[in-house]
Amino acid sequence: MDAEILSIGTELLLGDIVNTNAAYISRELAVHGIGCYYQSVVGDNPERLSECLKLALSRADIVITTGGLGPTYDDMTKETVADCFGLAMELHQPSLDRMIEMFSRSGRQLTKNNEKQAYMPIGAIVFNNDRGTAPGLAIEKDGKTVIMLPGPPVEMSAMFDNKVKPYLKGKTSKVLLSSVIHIFGLGESAVEDILHDYMLEHTNPTIAPYAKTGEVQLRVTAFADSEDAAQSLIEPVVKDITSLFPDYVYGVDAGNMQTALVAALKSASKTIAVAESCTGGMIASRITEVPGASDVFLCGICSYSNQSKVELLCVGKDTLDAYGAVSRETALEMARGVRRIAGSDIGIATTGIAGPSGGTKEKPVGLVYAAISTKEREEALELDLGRRGIDGERELIRNAACLNAMHLALRSLSPNA
Amino acid sequence: MDAEILSIGTELLLGDIVNTNAAYISRELAVHGIGCYYQSVVGDNPERLSECLKLALSRADIVITTGGLGPTYDDMTKETVADCFGLAMELHQPSLDRMIEMFSRSGRQLTKNNEKQAYMPIGAIVFNNDRGTAPGLAIEKDGKTVIMLPGPPVEMSAMFDNKVKPYLKGKTSKVLLSSVIHIFGLGESAVEDILHDYMLEHTNPTIAPYAKTGEVQLRVTAFADSEDAAQSLIEPVVKDITSLFPDYVYGVDAGNMQTALVAALKSASKTIAVAESCTGGMIASRITEVPGASDVFLCGICSYSNQSKVELLCVGKDTLDAYGAVSRETALEMARGVRRIAGSDIGIATTGIAGPSGGTKEKPVGLVYAAISTKEREEALELDLGRRGIDGERELIRNAACLNAMHLALRSLSPNA
Repeated sequence: MDAEILSIGTELLLGDIVNTNAAYISRELAVHGIGCYYQSVVGDNPERLSECLKLALSRADIVITTGGLGPTYDDMTKETVADCFGLAMELHQPSLDRMIEMFSRSGRQLTKNNEKQAYMPIGAIVFNNDRGTAPGLAIEKDGKTVIMLPGPPVEMSAMFDNKVKPYLKGKTSKVLLSSVIHIFGLGESAVEDILHDYMLEHTNPTIAPYAKTGEVQLRVTAFADSEDAAQSLIEPVVKDITSLFPDYVYGVDAGNMQTALVAALKSASKTIAVAESCTGGMIASRITEVPGASDVFLCGICSYSNQSKVELLCVGKDTLDAYGAVSRETALEMARGVRRIAGSDIGIATTGIAGPSGGTKEKPVGLVYAAISTKEREEALELDLGRRGIDGERELIRNAACLNAMHLALRSLSPNA
Repeated sequence: MDAEILSIGTELLLGDIVNTNAAYISRELAVHGIGCYYQSVVGDNPERLSECLKLALSRADIVITTGGLGPTYDDMTKETVADCFGLAMELHQPSLDRMIEMFSRSGRQLTKNNEKQAYMPIGAIVFNNDRGTAPGLAIEKDGKTVIMLPGPPVEMSAMFDNKVKPYLKGKTSKVLLSSVIHIFGLGESAVEDILHDYMLEHTNPTIAPYAKTGEVQLRVTAFADSEDAAQSLIEPVVKDITSLFPDYVYGVDAGNMQTALVAALKSASKTIAVAESCTGGMIASRITEVPGASDVFLCGICSYSNQSKVELLCVGKDTLDAYGAVSRETALEMARGVRRIAGSDIGIATTGIAGPSGGTKEKPVGLVYAAISTKEREEALELDLGRRGIDGERELIRNAACLNAMHLALRSLSPNA
């Protein structure tokens, strides 16, 4: 069974709002094992809406629309769909009663154009709107179904969860399940190069790579009669792939690096502190973005000046004089310093040249040292993260420095570290 | 001239990512006076892509695609478009050279599938990708134009701004110029309420409000025969609006709050240091994101634990005992402490409850104190930034806390502070 999403609203075509509704519905369709091969957006224009609707009905069993159910003259989804199916409109008294009650509770008067929202194509299945005035509805005719939902995302998502999901479950028995494998330190093309044949061999589950900023994600998706059956199709593939990239896979369904790190710290009952120069607070900011980070994160020191490296982190003046602020030695002393000052189990640090200025021939833009210090061991990585002065290079360097430092901490917590 | 957007990628149809690209491009098209009546999304499937492309070409003069330019076998936008236009593919040597150089700089080996990204339909106009490996391109044939852009939003937006805008400008003789007025501390509807009649009265320049996370931007856009003529249409309107919101406009074409702050610090020859609890490094991270921040930013201390507030920032134990970590008094001592430790002119601080847990009846999630300390004056704001437990509340609270603290510093530097 296939579905197609048709989002209606001129504000989408003007870019005033982002189409989060389409992403939400797509995700839910995938989970329910309903294929979705097209999404479209059209404005509040009856001819173009009608044209898009007919095209969608020619391609899919179910068309789900969002928007155009409001009270104003340019809201015309129901009328256009009714017209396509040759259905007349009639008053749906329960919807009108509901609306009158909602208005009287908030002390407002129902206006004439609000009544329009209670008119439905004859035979429609009506979905109450728990978060607004516009009811949703479904029409079934000639083997096709059109589900019409309100545009505001809070109204749409509540209606989808509470009304549309039970309605759709009655139409399918298949389950679609995905797992995401997180890979750090290898590019998308390198991953695909290694996995090329393996990916082609597998059709259920399918394996698809996505390049995120600084990491690659592999999505493994299975289609089966039950959640358990889908899960047992996914598991061996996740295991295969994980064993193919032992040094690079940092998590499965882990969300992102900072979430994986906070989880690993919690499960190891370890604490961390961070000393940052070139990343300037980004690592601390990302770790503390994770709810509950306060259990494992003690403090971050962003020592941008040399003076603050000496005074706040106890980096030796001799070290700075001999090797410079951007050096393996300084990075190690920063990591050690912040670990001791905070009294944490792990200290990590970054120092480098994020650019655009500040680079020299010996120490070019993109040269970054990431270091870790624990009671047992210390390590510093020398990284060349330069991107040839491209636009946004500074943020790319800082992001990569962040990920490398967090990855050092994460690896130190892995069972075979 | 009409354009249509065709976004390509199975991850969009699975709802893994939200189609921010379509919104971005739509907004830019609107600003350039190019109509957009349809957006579509299709997966990495050559038949369906070809079908969607032909439909889009039948309706619009320009079709802008995003996605499907990657190195893997399922990236097939260029090939499909070439096929539709009856064009063969050929190696574009400059793109290959660029890629080889990028790879060698980062010490990686170019794989065979990367080479695919350097093949272009014969006659294509190639757009270099400043943020990734996949070049973009445009093909013009039979009065129709297809512009193909990479899928990752950072790559797409940079290419659109730097390459596609000048290209589109070549298709029209008029000049479109915009200024952005940055407003902090007032909601979009409040701004719109005040400006409603003024906005309706003005058609050239037009005035459009956009709600960004935590601020409102008013885009003033003029359409004229020359840049000077456009500029002289914009100036009086910017002046009018700025004088209408004297306490809320923090900049014109300022980029964002941190860029405005670093510029203001530089022009006043002042330095700043930051003490962060609930924002956990976000303020430091944002300030240091601005190139040249090292001239004015001395250090950041992210004191997540009470112990670190005492030891690193010299907050009094008595203060913490009497008022708690989330209090006006603690915020002020943090700001004062970091200013003295760093020896900076300005110290700013945040402390609050970002949630989702940690809230109490007296100190609910969303309660945040933002403070500033200079030699001349100290001030702390009590903020209620709670968003009733909505999804993503933690990040919204942290973001708003960040902006409020930076705004305190920015205001202290304004001529009439």
